[in-house]
Amino acid sequence: MYQSFDVATRPEQGPPRLQALRERLQREELDGFLVPRADAHQGEYVAAGDERLAWLTGFTGSAGFCAVLRDIAGVFVDGRYRTQVKQQVSDVFTPVHWPEVQLADWLKAQLPTGGRVGFDPWLHSASQMQSLTKALTAHGIEFVQSDNLVDRIWQDQPAPPMQPVMAQPLEYAGLSSAEKTASLAEGLRNAGHNAAVITLPDSIMWLLNIRGSDIAHNPVAHGFAILHSDARVDLFMAAEKLADVTGQLGSDVTVHPPETFLAVVAALSEDEAATVAVDLASLPQIVADQLGDSLVAAGDPCALPKARKCAAEIEGSAAAHLRDGVAVVETLAWLDAQTPGSVSEIDVVKHLETERRKDPNLRDISFETISGTGPNGAIIHYRVSEDSNSVLEDGHLLVLDSGGQYLDGTTDITRTLAIGTPPPAAQQAYTRVLQGMIAMSRLRWPKGLAGRDIEAVGRMPLWLVGQDFNHGLGHGVGAFLSVHEGPQRLSRAGTVPLDPGMILSNEPGYYREGAFGIRIENLLVVEPASALDTADPERDMLSWRTLTYAPLDRRLIVADMLTKAERDWLNAYHAAVLAKIGPNVTDAALRWLDAATAPL
Amino acid sequence: MYQSFDVATRPEQGPPRLQALRERLQREELDGFLVPRADAHQGEYVAAGDERLAWLTGFTGSAGFCAVLRDIAGVFVDGRYRTQVKQQVSDVFTPVHWPEVQLADWLKAQLPTGGRVGFDPWLHSASQMQSLTKALTAHGIEFVQSDNLVDRIWQDQPAPPMQPVMAQPLEYAGLSSAEKTASLAEGLRNAGHNAAVITLPDSIMWLLNIRGSDIAHNPVAHGFAILHSDARVDLFMAAEKLADVTGQLGSDVTVHPPETFLAVVAALSEDEAATVAVDLASLPQIVADQLGDSLVAAGDPCALPKARKCAAEIEGSAAAHLRDGVAVVETLAWLDAQTPGSVSEIDVVKHLETERRKDPNLRDISFETISGTGPNGAIIHYRVSEDSNSVLEDGHLLVLDSGGQYLDGTTDITRTLAIGTPPPAAQQAYTRVLQGMIAMSRLRWPKGLAGRDIEAVGRMPLWLVGQDFNHGLGHGVGAFLSVHEGPQRLSRAGTVPLDPGMILSNEPGYYREGAFGIRIENLLVVEPASALDTADPERDMLSWRTLTYAPLDRRLIVADMLTKAERDWLNAYHAAVLAKIGPNVTDAALRWLDAATAPL
Repeated sequence: MYQSFDVATRPEQGPPRLQALRERLQREELDGFLVPRADAHQGEYVAAGDERLAWLTGFTGSAGFCAVLRDIAGVFVDGRYRTQVKQQVSDVFTPVHWPEVQLADWLKAQLPTGGRVGFDPWLHSASQMQSLTKALTAHGIEFVQSDNLVDRIWQDQPAPPMQPVMAQPLEYAGLSSAEKTASLAEGLRNAGHNAAVITLPDSIMWLLNIRGSDIAHNPVAHGFAILHSDARVDLFMAAEKLADVTGQLGSDVTVHPPETFLAVVAALSEDEAATVAVDLASLPQIVADQLGDSLVAAGDPCALPKARKCAAEIEGSAAAHLRDGVAVVETLAWLDAQTPGSVSEIDVVKHLETERRKDPNLRDISFETISGTGPNGAIIHYRVSEDSNSVLEDGHLLVLDSGGQYLDGTTDITRTLAIGTPPPAAQQAYTRVLQGMIAMSRLRWPKGLAGRDIEAVGRMPLWLVGQDFNHGLGHGVGAFLSVHEGPQRLSRAGTVPLDPGMILSNEPGYYREGAFGIRIENLLVVEPASALDTADPERDMLSWRTLTYAPLDRRLIVADMLTKAERDWLNAYHAAVLAKIGPNVTDAALRWLDAATAPL
Repeated sequence: MYQSFDVATRPEQGPPRLQALRERLQREELDGFLVPRADAHQGEYVAAGDERLAWLTGFTGSAGFCAVLRDIAGVFVDGRYRTQVKQQVSDVFTPVHWPEVQLADWLKAQLPTGGRVGFDPWLHSASQMQSLTKALTAHGIEFVQSDNLVDRIWQDQPAPPMQPVMAQPLEYAGLSSAEKTASLAEGLRNAGHNAAVITLPDSIMWLLNIRGSDIAHNPVAHGFAILHSDARVDLFMAAEKLADVTGQLGSDVTVHPPETFLAVVAALSEDEAATVAVDLASLPQIVADQLGDSLVAAGDPCALPKARKCAAEIEGSAAAHLRDGVAVVETLAWLDAQTPGSVSEIDVVKHLETERRKDPNLRDISFETISGTGPNGAIIHYRVSEDSNSVLEDGHLLVLDSGGQYLDGTTDITRTLAIGTPPPAAQQAYTRVLQGMIAMSRLRWPKGLAGRDIEAVGRMPLWLVGQDFNHGLGHGVGAFLSVHEGPQRLSRAGTVPLDPGMILSNEPGYYREGAFGIRIENLLVVEPASALDTADPERDMLSWRTLTYAPLDRRLIVADMLTKAERDWLNAYHAAVLAKIGPNVTDAALRWLDAATAPL
């Protein structure tokens, strides 16, 4: 299995570790130390040896941090994790509501003037330290760079990952690494920059047409890169990871040992006139320090070109989705044949992964499958473990959110399924979520708008009855890369114009605590809108092409609530599911699919 | 009439005036001079003596400016005025596409290093001069404060307006001026500011519960104010304007001659620790100069409290709208009885104003009525003059956008009307615009969202068929104040959360150049959403209360295109129009209204 159902941490591990860390604090004459969830690459998933937050506190969520002071240790978590943190951490830790309470304000309240807070400058971004320093300098609180104090007390800390890197074939990548570096280097020259420092692993993978497996569910290898304005690339990565791609990296790429990275960065700023483009939101503070005045906050030059997928990436993603749809349909057909009360959440996860593994192109799942039945479905980031595992009972809804990493694309699909006979309130709620999902799928919009300009369309059916959901409508998705990719987003934080080739999820939901959860998710790719007789000829309009094909549970749809346009969309979508997925499933699944996609 | 149909300017006036201005340039050793449309209060309408842009160039649009250099004079106008500027200005002027071409870039291209550009520091805001200076200092171009060179050559320039100020009774204002100043002064103290400088006339009117008539269609008097943190107010306004409100301004208000304003502002900054809150976007540069380091860009403290109308202002506005609706219905009924080909655009304007004037509370129209038939309807800011006046022909649509300034409220309504038999394409387009207008009217949304977060809802029906319109969905509206009021907006520029009491327009449109225009506009006020059985109890939701009641032309609606929910809304709205307006119209109009509001 690509995921485990073990309970990863125990609250009782926390107190002795916290005690040990505080002894270090004393020795270093520090009043506090910051323990972020992030690693040096600011990604969502981290390697085992970077799980410092979980190791220290027990909290395993995908975002948050701990501020350890001499007599209080705040664990800062957002709304998704309020319940989880209470279950996972011992009472020597104090959960803090974040971002409602900001770290700077909390430190101001807890620390006296003259307080010194240590931090590992690899694990905090330049923009984060900039705003912390700005907020606290006036209060006499100082941030002090330090070795990582957690690493000093974590005796069996796993070593950094050292997995082999493989080449991403041109067939899937679409553009050669040489074309990409040439184009970005031209951009640097036009902007007057000498180089760009790139620390996001998926940017480096995309730029060099390579993939890795240093961390779970993300086909990336850890490393750093410098792109020069003459199109040379310095890659800082352990040579042993690169054995399989020797000779494939291109003559302009020079591999260096990772430990030389800081010195090479420092050399960039020796020329006083040099300017170096960086992404302040992800650049480690220690790298920013080397660049000094050369640093220009110009963003990661790979971010937008990577987000705008080329034709080969789009077609690869579409093909991966059709194969993924076969695994999903087989699983749904199997599940529907089981008696309510006979199957558990973990059983569903295992069955689905087994179906996905039948595809030789599968390399991983794209995140830990969320399989939440009944009340567990209302926990937006539910992770099923042996402790929480629940049986699918009659009247439950099951939220099944999963995806695969295939050589040709990354998938992410959520279906909500009726177990036995669904309650009418759940059917009505499901129908509204579906209406939001359909409204966004059908949308056309003027080129130039960002995700935040159109997100309301997918929430409106819920808003009209006084409901909503506490997450964005959608996130960007990579092409055999991160399942959460920026900068494209369908949310109020989505400020980048949506451009053709960008892949995003469309996933409205509804969550009734203690009762049920609903989420429906398809991946969509932005494309120029097709011609219409009614269209104003001077307007550039964009629309979506759907990538995800799997049935939407008809037992949860109140047909009378749909408009004709919504019903037409649904029936056309189901007909496409049958046509595209049907030919590749087993006979039993085809019989099931035929009924599941019948017109409504 | 509150508006004239004269052609206000002639292109041939421009060349000799430009010649005279250039002679002044030479004498002052300047390479250029900026002639904005704005006055010292940065409002949308200006007094006759402030119409420098129109006087010099002939261009009468509501936004734009002229940059006069030694050998070129650029008239910068936005997309709404591209056609108009060509008709109004002589070819000694060069129209410039603004904001696509920015003034700074244009000056860079036109002027040599060392160029000196004069400007009147009363007419340009601090933020405008800040960005111009920032952009051009590196290029060696200098901005030089100067007397207004246009004023020196404009021999019959009208004197500043000197109209009497009247008190706004508490019955309509809802809150006393003393309550308002006490509350804002507390805000200043909490923020640590000593004072706020207020230069927006509608803010001063709101704060002191007074109204004026210095400029057309806006019940404001020109003046400046300083609000101190101890709730004292210095008002800089000619005493002769204030004769009718002597003794009504409150003991904390001190009236000063306008010419002492700068000296009093300068005195504020004598205490080095003092901070003074200002709105950089409207503060004249010359005032900013007096404040020096005391200046804090904290915004106009009146802006949000003024936008969030109190109960008395909302009920006053609602009452004004019902009386305004009577005038509109009488006009529509009259128009419908005329034969196509027998009535002109100006006839309609005159009839409507005559109906409005029957209400003794009417003080002005709230802007020059837009009455555009056939192709004129496609000109978004069409102003009918004797030259352009067109006859309403069979098959035309008439766009009629108008409003009144009543003692108890400001109205703004647009109806699009079929003249004779409308073409099917226009009916379909009208129905889509109506669908957008209905979608916004029906919306509920979570508290905290801004206009830009929900605007898409009103555009979606057009987007779906490849159409759109080139203006915001809605603007803020004052309570017997400016018909265009900020900061609340229903557009991508609307970044301020919508709060209960804010009045906004909801006015989607569609414009087919050379053929027809469509716009439908109601005013709405934000209120807490009513309770619903389905609503999540923990969510604060907002919704709209409609203020505008007048029928929507049933002849332009393709009933089959409407969903059941849309049709239900329309029928309920029409029933409300009949119930609220019907009792107060003439018998003939009631017969017409009865048919015009019949269920669809």
